[in-house]
Formats: sequence, structure tokens, C-alpha cells
Amino acid sequence: MMDEHKWSHAFKLDPDKYISDEDLERICESGSDGIIVGGSSGVTFDNTIDLLGRIRRYAIPCVLEVSNREAIVPGFDHYYIPFVLNAQNPEWIIEPHVQAVKELGTIIPWQDVSLVGYCVLNPKATVARMTDSRTSLDAEDVIAYGRFAQHLLHCSYFYIEYSGTFGDMDLVRHAYQSFKKDGDMHILYGGGIKYPDQVQQAVTVSDTVVVGNIIYEDIRAAIQTVKEVKTT
Amino acid sequence: MMDEHKWSHAFKLDPDKYISDEDLERICESGSDGIIVGGSSGVTFDNTIDLLGRIRRYAIPCVLEVSNREAIVPGFDHYYIPFVLNAQNPEWIIEPHVQAVKELGTIIPWQDVSLVGYCVLNPKATVARMTDSRTSLDAEDVIAYGRFAQHLLHCSYFYIEYSGTFGDMDLVRHAYQSFKKDGDMHILYGGGIKYPDQVQQAVTVSDTVVVGNIIYEDIRAAIQTVKEVKTT
Repeated sequence: MMDEHKWSHAFKLDPDKYISDEDLERICESGSDGIIVGGSSGVTFDNTIDLLGRIRRYAIPCVLEVSNREAIVPGFDHYYIPFVLNAQNPEWIIEPHVQAVKELGTIIPWQDVSLVGYCVLNPKATVARMTDSRTSLDAEDVIAYGRFAQHLLHCSYFYIEYSGTFGDMDLVRHAYQSFKKDGDMHILYGGGIKYPDQVQQAVTVSDTVVVGNIIYEDIRAAIQTVKEVKTT
Repeated sequence: MMDEHKWSHAFKLDPDKYISDEDLERICESGSDGIIVGGSSGVTFDNTIDLLGRIRRYAIPCVLEVSNREAIVPGFDHYYIPFVLNAQNPEWIIEPHVQAVKELGTIIPWQDVSLVGYCVLNPKATVARMTDSRTSLDAEDVIAYGRFAQHLLHCSYFYIEYSGTFGDMDLVRHAYQSFKKDGDMHILYGGGIKYPDQVQQAVTVSDTVVVGNIIYEDIRAAIQTVKEVKTT
């Protein structure tokens, strides 16, 4: 079993976005600890298995963030099942998970699957709109969601997700410091990381910094984030 | 820490219902393994602490099924936090839990608290109406909710709740047999138990038989269920 607890940097690749072979090679050989494959829309079995096949040419570990049950592809090292804790649309809280378990329950290798508590904080993000997430949260709210995830859902991972925008680092820091006092839940931060100073801030408020969109906008800047994380 | 895994019989006492000292003594001295204190409406701090104080005259272990945060009373042996898995009202899925954690998170003794997956199956029950539970379920649905609770939420307990009516024993049996093949999640059955033949059926499809309403209707029949469970 993989240990993403040791990941300080991860790239997030979206199966619905184009990446050239050359750029993918740079990502996979960058020194990043791992790749998370996931996206909020347009993710299919075909584009997911295609991307996995291309990543598998390299030695880097690879996790699937399962976004819909049609896109569950075997062969990843691990599977994150997102539980959007602040979702208000009941169709997106646990119903899709239960339907997937109903179809696949007897063949799921549970040891390779982790429920990951997500707190979605950018109201404009696709995931926030889809799940009708309650995003007007202060640090105490985020801490409450995190404690719920840690102590009642027994989540090993908690994902602070600003998808598409750089987060409120004061809020994230406050939450992170509280979580670290409280136990050993692993905190991922994702959202809007482009510049070295953002990486430096994100490193101090999370265990794993997840870098996504910039891959598709400025591959050189994306690769640079690995060095920033590893030297901060 | 208590081990309710060894409970084959439990009484459920509702703080909002009257029970005489004499009847309470019969319940507490009945040989039942424990008492679960809980109710769907009218549960307050005052009536809960009053009932706990009266139960504490006896040696029987006592769990609080937390129904609202105003009624969280210290001094129980253990606390069940109900997660109604088939609730469709987002206000009742995790929001009340998160609000309680927000208020009390720093003082909760987490080792004494268990998230319990509930599947609510009587559409006329107060809890089903309050949570807008999806009750038209077949055994495969119940199994999916249970597997989700077991493998993703890491629940130790799963409560098949027919509150107010005697359940579909074929459905419950099918689900129970599947859970027992799948691991060691402890299954509680509650709902409508009055007669010896119902007890005998419920014993074969659950790990703990929970007896509630009959306490307030026919104390003699209620006490008799203990003997039935222990000899079946």
C-alpha cells in the first residue's frame, strides 16, 4: 500500500484537459511525489484510462480521485473517494457513493480506497456549484468539518480545496495548526498555486501542496513549484 | 471503554416518555445487556439528565443516542452519533453533527463516541419524516448503505431502524448475512418488537435486538423479550 502521508508535493492532472507527451514527461520526471488524477467535469472512463496509460510509462505513483462511477479505472495505486463535507445538495453528499458501492461493492479492494474529507471553499469552482457547497466559512467552520472528518469519519486525509483560486492563507493556517494539535490527519491544500511565494505560503499550512491548473497554463512555472516545495 | 459488541439485548428508553420507578427497576434488573437512551422528539437536557440519574441507581451500562446538541449530557458510558445514511434532507445528514463539533470539539472525549450508521426504514416514523429518509429500499440498497458505513466511514455499528413497526425480516436477514460475510460490523435491529416470535426472528438477523415502545405499553411483555433473546 502506498503512503501518501509522505507526499509534500503532488500534481493534479485532469483527464478532460489536453497535455502533450513532452509536458507529461516533465511532470512525471519533475521530482514531485505523486500524481492525483481528477476533475470536476468531462471525466470519463476513456479519458481516464488513456491518461493512466500515459502516466504509467514513468515511475511516479498515481492516485485516482473518483469523480463519478463511470470513470472508475482499475490500475491506480490508490483511490480517493471525495466526501464534500460542506455540500448542501443531498444528491452529492453520499448518494453517488452508495450507488457506486451498490454496483461494485463485492469487487472493490477496500484496502486501496480512502474516503477523503473535502472542504470546498471557492464558490465559483465547478465542484462548489455542482455540490451546492456552503463556502462562506470561517476557520472555525473548517476546523469543525475537519474534526468531524477526523474523529467521526476516521478520515486519514482532509483536502482544503480552493480549486481555481488561491486560498485565504490565514484561514488555512488557523485550521492547519488546529488539526496538527489534534492528531495525525494529513492535510492537502489545492487551489490557484502559480507563483513561488504562493508555494512557500501553501507549504507552511498543509502537508501536501497540490498543483493543478498551472500545468496547463505555464508548464515551466508548474515544474518550478516542485523545487519550491522541496526547498521550503 | 464499553464493549457493546457483546450486547445481544438492549432496551431503548425515551427521555420524553414517562416510566415509573417500579417499571424502570424491572428494566434495569431484567438481565438486558444495556440501555440506549434516545428519542426522536422532545428530548432535552433536563429530561435526559433526569433519566440518566434514575438509571444510574442500577449497574446496567447506558449509552446516549445523541439526537440534538442541547441534549448532550455528560456521564453516559458511551455516545452514539447517528448518521442517517438514507436521509435526503441535507440539514439532517451531517450539518447538525458539524455544528455540535464546532461548539464542543475541544472538549469531546472522542474515545467515548461512535458514529453509528442508521438505515431508517419505516416511512411513518418521526425520524424518517424529519430526515426525509428514502425508505423504499430493497435489501441490496440496505447492503450498499451498510458497506459504505463499514468500509468508507469505518463505522463499528450499523443500526437497522424500523422505529414503530416490525421490519421486513427477509430484507433484514439478507442484509445481515451479507454484512457477516463482509467483516465485523455490529448490527443492531430496532422496531416494533412485542411478541416472542418477533424476538426470535430478530435475534437471527442482528447482533443486538433493541426493544423500545413496548416498555411503555406492556412492561411484562418487554421484560419477557430479554428471556427470549437470551434463550434463542
